[in-house]
Amino acid sequence: MKLLVINPNTSAGMTAQIAAAARAAAAPGTDIVAVQPDFGAPSIEGHFDDAFAAAGVAQQARLHGADADGVVVACFGDPGLDAAREATAAPVIGIAEAAFHAASFLATGFSVVTTMTRTCTIADHLLHKYGFERRCRGVHGTDIPVLDLESMGEALVGRIEAAARTALERDRSGAIVLGCAGMADLALRLQQRLGVPVIDGVAAAVKFAESLAALSLRTSRRGDYAPPLPKPYAGWAAGLSFTAAD
Amino acid sequence: MKLLVINPNTSAGMTAQIAAAARAAAAPGTDIVAVQPDFGAPSIEGHFDDAFAAAGVAQQARLHGADADGVVVACFGDPGLDAAREATAAPVIGIAEAAFHAASFLATGFSVVTTMTRTCTIADHLLHKYGFERRCRGVHGTDIPVLDLESMGEALVGRIEAAARTALERDRSGAIVLGCAGMADLALRLQQRLGVPVIDGVAAAVKFAESLAALSLRTSRRGDYAPPLPKPYAGWAAGLSFTAAD
Amino acid sequence: MKLLVINPNTSAGMTAQIAAAARAAAAPGTDIVAVQPDFGAPSIEGHFDDAFAAAGVAQQARLHGADADGVVVACFGDPGLDAAREATAAPVIGIAEAAFHAASFLATGFSVVTTMTRTCTIADHLLHKYGFERRCRGVHGTDIPVLDLESMGEALVGRIEAAARTALERDRSGAIVLGCAGMADLALRLQQRLGVPVIDGVAAAVKFAESLAALSLRTSRRGDYAPPLPKPYAGWAAGLSFTAAD
Amino acid sequence: MKLLVINPNTSAGMTAQIAAAARAAAAPGTDIVAVQPDFGAPSIEGHFDDAFAAAGVAQQARLHGADADGVVVACFGDPGLDAAREATAAPVIGIAEAAFHAASFLATGFSVVTTMTRTCTIADHLLHKYGFERRCRGVHGTDIPVLDLESMGEALVGRIEAAARTALERDRSGAIVLGCAGMADLALRLQQRLGVPVIDGVAAAVKFAESLAALSLRTSRRGDYAPPLPKPYAGWAAGLSFTAAD
Amino acid sequence: MKLLVINPNTSAGMTAQIAAAARAAAAPGTDIVAVQPDFGAPSIEGHFDDAFAAAGVAQQARLHGADADGVVVACFGDPGLDAAREATAAPVIGIAEAAFHAASFLATGFSVVTTMTRTCTIADHLLHKYGFERRCRGVHGTDIPVLDLESMGEALVGRIEAAARTALERDRSGAIVLGCAGMADLALRLQQRLGVPVIDGVAAAVKFAESLAALSLRTSRRGDYAPPLPKPYAGWAAGLSFTAAD
Amino acid sequence: MKLLVINPNTSAGMTAQIAAAARAAAAPGTDIVAVQPDFGAPSIEGHFDDAFAAAGVAQQARLHGADADGVVVACFGDPGLDAAREATAAPVIGIAEAAFHAASFLATGFSVVTTMTRTCTIADHLLHKYGFERRCRGVHGTDIPVLDLESMGEALVGRIEAAARTALERDRSGAIVLGCAGMADLALRLQQRLGVPVIDGVAAAVKFAESLAALSLRTSRRGDYAPPLPKPYAGWAAGLSFTAAD
Repeated sequence: MKLLVINPNTSAGMTAQIAAAARAAAAPGTDIVAVQPDFGAPSIEGHFDDAFAAAGVAQQARLHGADADGVVVACFGDPGLDAAREATAAPVIGIAEAAFHAASFLATGFSVVTTMTRTCTIADHLLHKYGFERRCRGVHGTDIPVLDLESMGEALVGRIEAAARTALERDRSGAIVLGCAGMADLALRLQQRLGVPVIDGVAAAVKFAESLAALSLRTSRRGDYAPPLPKPYAGWAAGLSFTAAD
Repeated sequence: MKLLVINPNTSAGMTAQIAAAARAAAAPGTDIVAVQPDFGAPSIEGHFDDAFAAAGVAQQARLHGADADGVVVACFGDPGLDAAREATAAPVIGIAEAAFHAASFLATGFSVVTTMTRTCTIADHLLHKYGFERRCRGVHGTDIPVLDLESMGEALVGRIEAAARTALERDRSGAIVLGCAGMADLALRLQQRLGVPVIDGVAAAVKFAESLAALSLRTSRRGDYAPPLPKPYAGWAAGLSFTAAD
Repeated sequence: MKLLVINPNTSAGMTAQIAAAARAAAAPGTDIVAVQPDFGAPSIEGHFDDAFAAAGVAQQARLHGADADGVVVACFGDPGLDAAREATAAPVIGIAEAAFHAASFLATGFSVVTTMTRTCTIADHLLHKYGFERRCRGVHGTDIPVLDLESMGEALVGRIEAAARTALERDRSGAIVLGCAGMADLALRLQQRLGVPVIDGVAAAVKFAESLAALSLRTSRRGDYAPPLPKPYAGWAAGLSFTAAD
Repeated sequence: MKLLVINPNTSAGMTAQIAAAARAAAAPGTDIVAVQPDFGAPSIEGHFDDAFAAAGVAQQARLHGADADGVVVACFGDPGLDAAREATAAPVIGIAEAAFHAASFLATGFSVVTTMTRTCTIADHLLHKYGFERRCRGVHGTDIPVLDLESMGEALVGRIEAAARTALERDRSGAIVLGCAGMADLALRLQQRLGVPVIDGVAAAVKFAESLAALSLRTSRRGDYAPPLPKPYAGWAAGLSFTAAD
Repeated sequence: MKLLVINPNTSAGMTAQIAAAARAAAAPGTDIVAVQPDFGAPSIEGHFDDAFAAAGVAQQARLHGADADGVVVACFGDPGLDAAREATAAPVIGIAEAAFHAASFLATGFSVVTTMTRTCTIADHLLHKYGFERRCRGVHGTDIPVLDLESMGEALVGRIEAAARTALERDRSGAIVLGCAGMADLALRLQQRLGVPVIDGVAAAVKFAESLAALSLRTSRRGDYAPPLPKPYAGWAAGLSFTAAD
Repeated sequence: MKLLVINPNTSAGMTAQIAAAARAAAAPGTDIVAVQPDFGAPSIEGHFDDAFAAAGVAQQARLHGADADGVVVACFGDPGLDAAREATAAPVIGIAEAAFHAASFLATGFSVVTTMTRTCTIADHLLHKYGFERRCRGVHGTDIPVLDLESMGEALVGRIEAAARTALERDRSGAIVLGCAGMADLALRLQQRLGVPVIDGVAAAVKFAESLAALSLRTSRRGDYAPPLPKPYAGWAAGLSFTAAD
């Protein structure tokens, strides 16, 4: 089984880190192929970054999605998720949605601990779009820049742990969702320290994509996830158009 | 990996059928153990049946859940799901919730096709409890009695297919959720006929339970899913109490 | 008029206490018959306890509901409420729903003060199921075990009063709902101390059941509250089946 | 016990009719005093009529509410309900809210059958304000003018019955709420014909007001239902001001 | 273009102040005509005051709305808004709704700072009615009486500023809505001090009414905003009836 | 006043058409500058097209937004709206949101008539994100390709009119929102034929942007709409980065 893991930002270091996390979670027969767009921001920390990331996910899903058995969008804002679902019939899972789904199997209420506070609005919006607005009892920013997560020292871990403890207490929550692909390494360590389920979306998305693929379940081609209508795209996107032959 | 699959009704035939569906979906190393309560209704077709089924799930989860790596509650009303999550630290998945989660990965809107119309209220309630009330665009009863599903002739299949076609059209949906454990065999056949994803909750629950177990994610023991408080139960339930030793 | 009051736990002391509270609220011509299941937990403090209680309510409603003019389910989680409505055509009222309805006649926002914090999730769920999620501004646990309420000393009363005062202030609420049948005695005393309406669900449920009965309003037999389908139940539940003769 | 029943329109015939319906529902010791504003519209069939009716209810509650044990606002739009709750500490019940509450005790879904289609928006708004937007599955106008209901011939009854039958079928409902005080006489007759609970809000409001009064539950004086601030009113409303002495 | 600005309270001083604020916001060709009812309360600080104000708005819209190009209802509770929309085909804008709409163009979350805490419930209700319950992250009372705002000293400004700062911080908001027509003068000053958009509803309503009028968009006459049905009104309202000639 | 109108697709013909519609709506002193991205799809008819359009809007807002007094995003899916709000402090209005806001000032319920049925999901999502899910009573696809709208013959107009009539009837609506920038010319004509308000989002957005600019209201720079964090973008987006100097 081939899983395409799309890192929506342009940081090759983070792509490698995400690929490693995905491989650690994958079943023996699963092949992880990790890619990133050739344009956009090195980290996604706001709506402006996110707009480029969504186009980048659409680009990568179009270029590499055709023969994938599943696709993972590995940024917590799930940029371009719907676009990728049009671009390929393989099941496509965002890491935010995967983490929310996993958490809601394990606790009646969960809290999200993420990076920049300004991105909490994006998480709020996703929670509402997906229907987890009642399950999620709080979204907490730590104001740690995304790229600082690459070298995860104890000081950073401590800040995230402290934010998680506060969240569990204030929100009366039973589980923690880590709100950034860059926190993937942290899940098991935090889980041991906190004594509650700690969910990394990359791992969860890999397992859910494997699950759907194993059940021969693919993205619906009826309605808004039907393949894009054939028409010529302009500029750098010219090669990404769909044609009647698609 | 050992998965405990609890059929909440007392029909041994349906337990066997569910076990077969679960095994068909399970990964090679997964051992399926299927059980059923020793009391209650032979099929769950209303709130009254459901109350006994929930107690039956609690009983079976208490008796057999301790050494399971995952638990599946295999009736579309997810009876006793929260009780089972208290009774064991293994991840517990209901087949209705599993099907809803799977469908929402594949389509922006899905429809449920189920058995007795009178059970649609139970599905409505679950959809709302879980947060899928916007994703699900319709719940459709066929008024086929649950136990008629054991011998699934073409006439029955045709009725279910027709209901699914109507649902896709009227609800502008992109996927079908089968609303009964007894319909598990039908998913692939209907998927081929309808050309949209058709989700059987038994298979989906098995894969999601395997996924969580593989990721070392277990039911939260903090908050309302903490183990039941120790106290003596009365009557036929006497042996099911939790004690300080649990 | 005969009101069947079902205590869903197995504590005879609490049954007597609830019966007394029901009688204190009942109109002169109302006869209170209080029963309890012959199995299950002595107090309902979580989902596991609740599953047995729901089956117990179904049992008692089936055994004693036929000639009742109204039925009250006297545990704040309203266990088995829908099942009891199938089992008898008499109007059936849960004490949580009764208290929520009463409070929403008296204040635009109310707060719930209950026993174990772990049961707050059950109250949250009911509030949402019934549509009071905007009227209720907070659910507050006191972590007083249910059975401690039988001997209600001033220390306990003080803890509940303090929790209520905090709730009124923090939630900007205008009324208090007492979240346990065991708190029935407390309502008037607290009301005098707090200067806001304090609602005990047992009393409210008795009056609402009397009201519906007086108006010849009975549970709908159309749709999901139709009588259970006839089929043989197994095990200890065998005698509770409905038959074509019902 | 004295119940003040306020007909918010200026039609004396309807006041008498409502008073009769209230008396028919009231307990032996309950004294019904029915009043109407001295200004406004003879029937409430839109937002403009409703604005006068709300001020009329405020007027009557101020003039006659002080010694009432309970107040009923007897127009299906519940005009001036919040104002009346400020004006008197007695419990105040609107007939729409009473009917919605009663229906939700009896069926998981109900439908409203009302007079002019243009008033359906008012009912929709109330359903949402009170939290019954999920319990109510449809609001159906018959375009019968309110005052035509005074002489309820079989033709009119037939139109309302037909609308109710359609509603039950289309909405998959289990109960009917009659959406006008002028339909009070009809409830029992329709209930017999339709075989489901049919709820008249006047009767329901009377019983619920009696219930609250019997339990010593009065409108909260904390928060937005505190007595109006003392200040001089102008024009025809001059005599209705509250003063520091109130 | 003629804009009718209705001050729903009877304070002539506030009418003048509102008219000045409206003129300051209006485009060169816009003529502001400010009126007030001849009855009711000098300030609207609760549901009781509001009921008279709504009737007063209906009265003024009926008397002066026929030749207006737009109507503004200038009290933060938007009293009588729907009634005024029936009474005239000109577009009618409430200052609360205008402020909410404007704020939601400028920030993903806003907070309301208003006068008496007891009126927060009215704002909460409007937010929900209009659909801004997710955009508004908090409604904050300052307990400043409305009429104290006429002489806006630095002490009052300081209290409002402090409340706004607290709101921005606690609610994680990006804009402030001023919750009283009497605060109109304050918007620009506070905006400079706080560094976030501060919205006065009077100015916003004037611009939105001008906008709709310029686009030939008028209140819908189909459905519940159709002109009131012709019928004779009683008492002081007698002259306000609609007739077949309207 | 300078308004930047961004057509998110790459069709120059549609840009010209939108510019003309914007100029027709604009006040005398308003200068309309219409632009389009240099990449992407010639029409936006799905999520895939939309992802490129959002990046295109971000690009154009970054390149041309700095000296604008207001920005209009002129595609009914409001692509890149949040990104544009980060990229410039000028108020930014999407044509879908503008139309929804305008419609909700004019009717208690409105319907949307749009182009391809597959885009209805995008409108549904926006309605929910903005809070108009209760005001909008239906979204209706006509399956007219966007680019066919450039030459608007009577046959097309007739199809749209018919869809609007059906929508008004079925949805019990009072106003029509046109769901495509390409329908701008149609609004007044349809309004005359249908007798209800018909809203074109381009015109509405122009007026609302003018309104906010006139009131010195600009996008909040606090929270998620703060300027993008400075960091180097890659590929074709390299020139769009924000720096510390921004």
